[in-house]
Amino acid sequence: MPIVMKNDATESQVAAVGAVIRAMGFTPQPMPGIQRTTICVLGNKSRVDSSQIEVMDGVMEVIHVTKPFKLVSREGKEPTVVRVGANAFGGAALPVIAGPCAVEDRARFLEIAEIVKEAGATMLRGGAYKPRTSPYAFQGLGENGLKIMAEAREKTGLPICTEVMDTDTVELVSEYTDVIQIGARNMYNFSLLKRVGKQKKPVLLKRGLSATINEFLMAAEYILSEGNWNVILCERGIRTFEEQTRNTLDLSAIPIIHELSHLPIIVDPSHASGRWDSVIPLARAAVAVGADGLIVEVHQNPKEAFSDGPQSLKPDKFLNLMQDIRLIAKSVGRQV
Amino acid sequence: MPIVMKNDATESQVAAVGAVIRAMGFTPQPMPGIQRTTICVLGNKSRVDSSQIEVMDGVMEVIHVTKPFKLVSREGKEPTVVRVGANAFGGAALPVIAGPCAVEDRARFLEIAEIVKEAGATMLRGGAYKPRTSPYAFQGLGENGLKIMAEAREKTGLPICTEVMDTDTVELVSEYTDVIQIGARNMYNFSLLKRVGKQKKPVLLKRGLSATINEFLMAAEYILSEGNWNVILCERGIRTFEEQTRNTLDLSAIPIIHELSHLPIIVDPSHASGRWDSVIPLARAAVAVGADGLIVEVHQNPKEAFSDGPQSLKPDKFLNLMQDIRLIAKSVGRQV
Amino acid sequence: MPIVMKNDATESQVAAVGAVIRAMGFTPQPMPGIQRTTICVLGNKSRVDSSQIEVMDGVMEVIHVTKPFKLVSREGKEPTVVRVGANAFGGAALPVIAGPCAVEDRARFLEIAEIVKEAGATMLRGGAYKPRTSPYAFQGLGENGLKIMAEAREKTGLPICTEVMDTDTVELVSEYTDVIQIGARNMYNFSLLKRVGKQKKPVLLKRGLSATINEFLMAAEYILSEGNWNVILCERGIRTFEEQTRNTLDLSAIPIIHELSHLPIIVDPSHASGRWDSVIPLARAAVAVGADGLIVEVHQNPKEAFSDGPQSLKPDKFLNLMQDIRLIAKSVGRQV
Amino acid sequence: MPIVMKNDATESQVAAVGAVIRAMGFTPQPMPGIQRTTICVLGNKSRVDSSQIEVMDGVMEVIHVTKPFKLVSREGKEPTVVRVGANAFGGAALPVIAGPCAVEDRARFLEIAEIVKEAGATMLRGGAYKPRTSPYAFQGLGENGLKIMAEAREKTGLPICTEVMDTDTVELVSEYTDVIQIGARNMYNFSLLKRVGKQKKPVLLKRGLSATINEFLMAAEYILSEGNWNVILCERGIRTFEEQTRNTLDLSAIPIIHELSHLPIIVDPSHASGRWDSVIPLARAAVAVGADGLIVEVHQNPKEAFSDGPQSLKPDKFLNLMQDIRLIAKSVGRQV
Repeated sequence: MPIVMKNDATESQVAAVGAVIRAMGFTPQPMPGIQRTTICVLGNKSRVDSSQIEVMDGVMEVIHVTKPFKLVSREGKEPTVVRVGANAFGGAALPVIAGPCAVEDRARFLEIAEIVKEAGATMLRGGAYKPRTSPYAFQGLGENGLKIMAEAREKTGLPICTEVMDTDTVELVSEYTDVIQIGARNMYNFSLLKRVGKQKKPVLLKRGLSATINEFLMAAEYILSEGNWNVILCERGIRTFEEQTRNTLDLSAIPIIHELSHLPIIVDPSHASGRWDSVIPLARAAVAVGADGLIVEVHQNPKEAFSDGPQSLKPDKFLNLMQDIRLIAKSVGRQV
Repeated sequence: MPIVMKNDATESQVAAVGAVIRAMGFTPQPMPGIQRTTICVLGNKSRVDSSQIEVMDGVMEVIHVTKPFKLVSREGKEPTVVRVGANAFGGAALPVIAGPCAVEDRARFLEIAEIVKEAGATMLRGGAYKPRTSPYAFQGLGENGLKIMAEAREKTGLPICTEVMDTDTVELVSEYTDVIQIGARNMYNFSLLKRVGKQKKPVLLKRGLSATINEFLMAAEYILSEGNWNVILCERGIRTFEEQTRNTLDLSAIPIIHELSHLPIIVDPSHASGRWDSVIPLARAAVAVGADGLIVEVHQNPKEAFSDGPQSLKPDKFLNLMQDIRLIAKSVGRQV
Repeated sequence: MPIVMKNDATESQVAAVGAVIRAMGFTPQPMPGIQRTTICVLGNKSRVDSSQIEVMDGVMEVIHVTKPFKLVSREGKEPTVVRVGANAFGGAALPVIAGPCAVEDRARFLEIAEIVKEAGATMLRGGAYKPRTSPYAFQGLGENGLKIMAEAREKTGLPICTEVMDTDTVELVSEYTDVIQIGARNMYNFSLLKRVGKQKKPVLLKRGLSATINEFLMAAEYILSEGNWNVILCERGIRTFEEQTRNTLDLSAIPIIHELSHLPIIVDPSHASGRWDSVIPLARAAVAVGADGLIVEVHQNPKEAFSDGPQSLKPDKFLNLMQDIRLIAKSVGRQV
Repeated sequence: MPIVMKNDATESQVAAVGAVIRAMGFTPQPMPGIQRTTICVLGNKSRVDSSQIEVMDGVMEVIHVTKPFKLVSREGKEPTVVRVGANAFGGAALPVIAGPCAVEDRARFLEIAEIVKEAGATMLRGGAYKPRTSPYAFQGLGENGLKIMAEAREKTGLPICTEVMDTDTVELVSEYTDVIQIGARNMYNFSLLKRVGKQKKPVLLKRGLSATINEFLMAAEYILSEGNWNVILCERGIRTFEEQTRNTLDLSAIPIIHELSHLPIIVDPSHASGRWDSVIPLARAAVAVGADGLIVEVHQNPKEAFSDGPQSLKPDKFLNLMQDIRLIAKSVGRQV
């Protein structure tokens, strides 16, 4: 943690910073330069809380070199494989999670579950609790939705994944689902992160709408720090000025997260673009860039979907997607 | 809600859209143009859910003209004044909420409470539950922090404002505080918004890190829709590419929100910039642009603050701030 | 162009808007709704300049439905193939443009030219005029650089591509190069766009650092409107809040631009991420998403590069890239 | 310039970095820590080009502590006052530049010039060369526009300010105008920056649409480095995801630029918001935050403006603006 002093910092200011470092139990090592003095901190084994130093007189900048995350860090660890039934996130075979945005109706969900299974999906998605911008929009079927999903699991044999929106319902959702999803809007909901960290089911954590990669990994750190290491990250687009797509899918996050963390990361091309006609090309790109899986919205009849119709694939398009990504996966040494 | 058809849309596609509109109970009115046909929807009294139509063949775009928010809308309403003790948010006298980022210690909090009161603050702030990016950072004193704040209220006579982070603690926090704060990271936490909408205390709602003004107002709509109309909005900076400040304070949001909504809106210059040396000029600008109040971080000794030291004002600087904004307030026909 | 009136607009305000529309030579068609009146404009064959109407009393919003670009629009046109020697941008075979950021030295450039040709590159890149953030950074060899590039073309048989920075040097650069590049920082330099539209060489137009897709296409429209239809678009990342990469590569722009425009679009993974270790995965993703080619920075010894060393591939890594994208291209029905 | 090595960097990698530093003429000083080694560079008097080092094996990060700008830096300099006729940018009296977006017509411009002078403007603005997103939009009257502006100067006695778009016309524009403006879209047009740095007239440099403060100051550095120190900076909004305003005015840039640089900085509230109804409150805020002046669009009849009508003030509103900012200026110890 080098501390850079202003070029007019006085000797007593340098000394004062040194005293604070010593009070923290470390050793200051001033490095006088021609323009300014830099003070290195020796003896720290982990990140030092520098806020005290940042505001001292004469200090220009405190530079952090130790990464802020520990448990999610790749340093000294093998890539994690999160297993859910026959799915292995982080393995050679890419899981594909598919289904409608929301569970709307028992018959329709059971039908789409069979359809996506037929097409090659390896896990089912569906929302029972829906975070909606408007309080007047469809908010999900709640526990009834969970029951329908559980029934679909029995019929298809595929595990299920669904979102939890608050600490109150973690236990309930956890009873039904195989994977608990934390949506983008809750990535900074630290109480919820801690709670899902305390239960046993694997967690699918979506990147926040404007979260940096560092913050995304720190959100995962919250879950791991409570004891649950089965976290699957999910890139789903970030907010930019571009108006043609709902979000801008940040595929460069995939290789970078693979370098920084041992956790697997999958891609959601449906929420990223908000346009069904971009979903297939983005799914191909996601597999090509090295994603560990996909989560895709599919609906029998997007025109009648209660939510997210414009970004849902029809079943025949989902078949096309599966065919496309099988070829791409092979090109990068993986399988679908 | 005009529906714009593609320029190669067939007559049967236009007819199909018309049929859907009729099925919704409205009347379609096709307007053939030279390049393309636009279909207007007649008879709707509120926003129509257009997702079915957006995905129909031949449809280029559906255009929404009715604003999505109802209860928070300015249309047909007088500006709301939220009263908290002697404070009137939305009135001519500007409330100034001041205090440290977090309640760290009883004696220190009681002391700073007296200091900011002396300087002219009209409400106390302080965090008992702290949303922190890192699970290893100080997370707040919890209920003990609330007790200390309540004691400060008794001693100073100033009402208090503190953040709630999850649905589990809404009741507890609500018992102690005068104003419940929803932090920026929880602006999309719809379960929490509904819960604070059900209790009686006024709510201070901060704009999300990358929330549009529309989404911000829709978050307020969640609270109002549960019956609590005492909502104070708070602009606290949005996330951009600029690196010199933590966030970019969006002061143009103030006059726009005043035009769109009847709710009062205050400004938090401390979190916006993340730099104490920007707080005073931004506070002046906030009052000049028409803000209905301020919330400012003040700490006896920012070097020793557990969090947000770099953006906290020392007491003497806070005095300067109060002097400055008194003059500005007068220039815009208000008082501090 | 529907014009949406405020819900309290008076009849005389509606009439006034109608009068302006008539004065423009079109026919107004008011559509009274329950909440508000919408006025449609009939008879316009192209985009109407609505700024007069936007400021009229009672007008809430003017909605534009005709796309602002004409010549670059896909409507009614086949995809354009831009041919440069043996390269066909927009064809089944994907051109790969490779070389160092800047031409630094004759011998070194001739050597890297042979190396990238050997590895499969089909065109050479290199900067003779360099746009640098700092006036103290290396600004390029100027005409000497162009001469070296021309020599490399003779030796390798590969066409060359280089950037022009101002109207003064368009003619000179145009004499030497096969493709003239407009850099991201000059995408809004309308004088330069017009000038390169008047000369005959194909133009490689990079997307501006924060340009929307619409603005990007309008910049191309400037070039086409001067008579030069041989424009190759290039996505190179946009500016966001993310700090791990220099820019965020927007791969969803590729399918969207293919839908909106007939022009070919290639991808620059080197400038997008600014990190050599992201270049190969992003190149794979670019081909998978449907890009019409790539432009990649390669340097014998990135440690000694005068500029952009951190994002340059070493020759052996470039070989890996070519092998990878050959497989991906095949999976999407194209060849490298 | 501390160089942080990876925590598994070998001794020979540390030695190799040291050798490169020595080859540059400086002295390496390794600082072994518990987790990793940091190497400090001693003996450099200015910023070192670190790109060679960044790509070396074992290097995690190179940290730059010397600010990249020299001539524009505040360090060791008094604030600059740029004088243009009776205007002093950076002085106690705030210049207000006013006029229409574009010079459209001789009579109309002469009229508005008198109107804004009457209201208190101290300089005239008007575009003769207009950078427009569409090639089909009004591009300005060219030299005729300059002549009309010069005539207005004679009649009113107010100096004039107008934009130059390319190197070809710098000399011509410089002959007519008192201040040469570089528009936001040309902030990265380094050839143009150098050219205006070589002529004698003061330069008004607008911040680029997505330029960081650092890049903005480096653009000014280009002008100063050619010998022209009379540069007036102008904040005019940056591009964000917010859709209610054209740009987000970044008022926190004002105090930060005052801290980093000796150059004066003014604010353009008209282009920032793109909405006339936000211009007055933002102008007040700009003066309150410490801006050194304003540039505002005023038009007799915004409904008929060839460009930017929606953001232009009518003369009576401009009068209101002047009254408002007079009061605010007084509150911050300045005058209008």
